[in-house]
Amino acid sequence: MTGKATINPQEGRLTLINVYEVEPETQAALVKALTDATKSTIRHQPGFISVSIHSSFDGRKVVNYAQWASKEHFEDFMKKPETQDQLKQFAGLAKSVAPSLYRVDEVIAE
Amino acid sequence: MTGKATINPQEGRLTLINVYEVEPETQAALVKALTDATKSTIRHQPGFISVSIHSSFDGRKVVNYAQWASKEHFEDFMKKPETQDQLKQFAGLAKSVAPSLYRVDEVIAE
Repeated sequence: MTGKATINPQEGRLTLINVYEVEPETQAALVKALTDATKSTIRHQPGFISVSIHSSFDGRKVVNYAQWASKEHFEDFMKKPETQDQLKQFAGLAKSVAPSLYRVDEVIAE
Repeated sequence: MTGKATINPQEGRLTLINVYEVEPETQAALVKALTDATKSTIRHQPGFISVSIHSSFDGRKVVNYAQWASKEHFEDFMKKPETQDQLKQFAGLAKSVAPSLYRVDEVIAE
């Protein structure tokens, strides 16, 4: 199910950027946990558009760049007990978790 | 020059994700400074692919999600004195700056 995501300010999506700080020895485990949960359950939620998972070369961070159709869809997803269980699992693999919700202001491309 | 960016693990690009913490009253100024510098000079650098600029709804963060053709292109760009001047300008508008370099591991899309 590996695919592609598009960043486009015209589309008015909600973007979640979640930066996890990790120990290098748990980086791969967090990437796997995020990938497995997204493929098995998160991608089937109403309003899900994409999740892109990134590993830093220094081993110390994982970034989840996620797109949802709207803030309401994301809030409905966050309210589910299963979501809270998943977030706890992810946080257990990290030293810190820093999520924020964004709009896309500008994309300048070659 | 507002366009679109694509996140695709198959393409093997270098991704820079830079999280700026800001005071809400300087968020728009940092977005403008990043946008102006990218449009006027950064987009013309060898290996530049895209810059996507994001504002958090709480006013406290700006994220630059940038793609370069390779780590070497990015390092060449970072070595230029003009780049260092620009980074100082951006940092002057922020409380903290946290850049890291990433690979894209997975994209799961609807």
